Amino acid sequence: MTDITSFSNPLVKRIRSLKHKKYRRRENCFWAEGIRAVLEAIELNWDIEMLVWAPDMLRSDRARQMLDQTALRQTTVSTAVYHHLTVSELPQGLGALIRPPQRHLADYAPGTDRFFVVLEASQDRGNVGAIVRTVDCAGGSGVILIGQAVDPYDPEALRASMGSIFSVPVFTSPTPSAFLTWAQTHDLWLVGTSARTDLNFRQATYRPPLALLFGNERAGLSTELQDAVNEFVHIPIQGRASSLNLGAAVAVMTYQVQLQHRLA
Amino acid sequence: MTDITSFSNPLVKRIRSLKHKKYRRRENCFWAEGIRAVLEAIELNWDIEMLVWAPDMLRSDRARQMLDQTALRQTTVSTAVYHHLTVSELPQGLGALIRPPQRHLADYAPGTDRFFVVLEASQDRGNVGAIVRTVDCAGGSGVILIGQAVDPYDPEALRASMGSIFSVPVFTSPTPSAFLTWAQTHDLWLVGTSARTDLNFRQATYRPPLALLFGNERAGLSTELQDAVNEFVHIPIQGRASSLNLGAAVAVMTYQVQLQHRLA
Repeated sequence: MTDITSFSNPLVKRIRSLKHKKYRRRENCFWAEGIRAVLEAIELNWDIEMLVWAPDMLRSDRARQMLDQTALRQTTVSTAVYHHLTVSELPQGLGALIRPPQRHLADYAPGTDRFFVVLEASQDRGNVGAIVRTVDCAGGSGVILIGQAVDPYDPEALRASMGSIFSVPVFTSPTPSAFLTWAQTHDLWLVGTSARTDLNFRQATYRPPLALLFGNERAGLSTELQDAVNEFVHIPIQGRASSLNLGAAVAVMTYQVQLQHRLA
Repeated sequence: MTDITSFSNPLVKRIRSLKHKKYRRRENCFWAEGIRAVLEAIELNWDIEMLVWAPDMLRSDRARQMLDQTALRQTTVSTAVYHHLTVSELPQGLGALIRPPQRHLADYAPGTDRFFVVLEASQDRGNVGAIVRTVDCAGGSGVILIGQAVDPYDPEALRASMGSIFSVPVFTSPTPSAFLTWAQTHDLWLVGTSARTDLNFRQATYRPPLALLFGNERAGLSTELQDAVNEFVHIPIQGRASSLNLGAAVAVMTYQVQLQHRLA
């Protein structure tokens, strides 16, 4: 027996509405899916409103055990309803309604943190999610989204982050200047990438606390951020392409910082 | 005056059909878009059947100059028709019908080539395109797609390659064994990535000619390819994530090879 078998159930309609940013804002809630993501959210104490799962779909023993033991609210849905809810290509039958934390960059002190990745006006949802995952892997301290950017709780961004959204803090800063005020207060070293500099990224010094700045794929960094950069580096390009894509550039840069900070 | 103003024109219908692999196969033709991509295809002597452009959209002086001087067939279309044809979010008003080269891995001798990226059963179209671009940037010699893989001439793969598809040779190998026969013949050194090895990718030796092998995001490398790998390396993961996504892993590995081969 499952609690919900009807597509017109209000909870089902509510979860589906959360695909849209407008409703995520209004409800202060997002929908995360997948065994790894949901277990991460629980383990890292995110504010979970409800777990939603499909008994005939969920195969994971770890997830089943968690559901047996958790005090969190839970609702079961039929397989058909879960397929109606999911945005995953290979749905695993487990999702959660989660309230995002209220994170304000101005209130955040980097402390012993090592490095941040800063994305200005990034519009590609998959890119932002994958970059959160890369920053997690490389040992970064967080991601800062400046300006008109993708919502990190967008379903596509969540999917690409593969659960790293729950362990890597993501901040949003409405303007470059709000970010720059914070960066100055905490004495961050700002590094940007540019094709028009001689300094190879492998020869640069990445003094922590560090922020690696990346512009929009089309427009690059705004003048305001460019003017604030302490050091520009270039990533050597061998072939006929003019630049790496954003996700690849972030991977190459963050792994160089990982090496220099002797994180691995 | 433009040659084509009707959506029901046979050429318009034909170009739209090329979004589907079945028709690309049948016609032995694909549709590439964008100023950079089309100029690359021309400069690198691809077999171009026809240039298609929208006079009211195309702003680039370089592209206009090329159209004035080229002996290639060309057809103009109305802005409305171009919007009907395009798969781009920011269409530039220039596309081309192109016949793909017949490349057979078995006939290809690596010569002084340095390294190849091998993707097994890669299903993500954007990933494959972005990886072709990364290999171009890092100085790689080509990309080899093994098994059921994305068609590199898929519109989404083409878009993500940003024109690198025209300078980086992409081969397809229907089975792992066809690839392995070729790799043995030309004495390639095969490197795979694995979380279950102690060798840090920064300490490995990437003797050319080299092939970097990457499995499907979900299933990893097939046993057949695993058994053939000369050396496994691991990319250190600091945070809670278990691995980088495919595109990021390729970027990190190819830039390590670029460094070791003293390409930059």
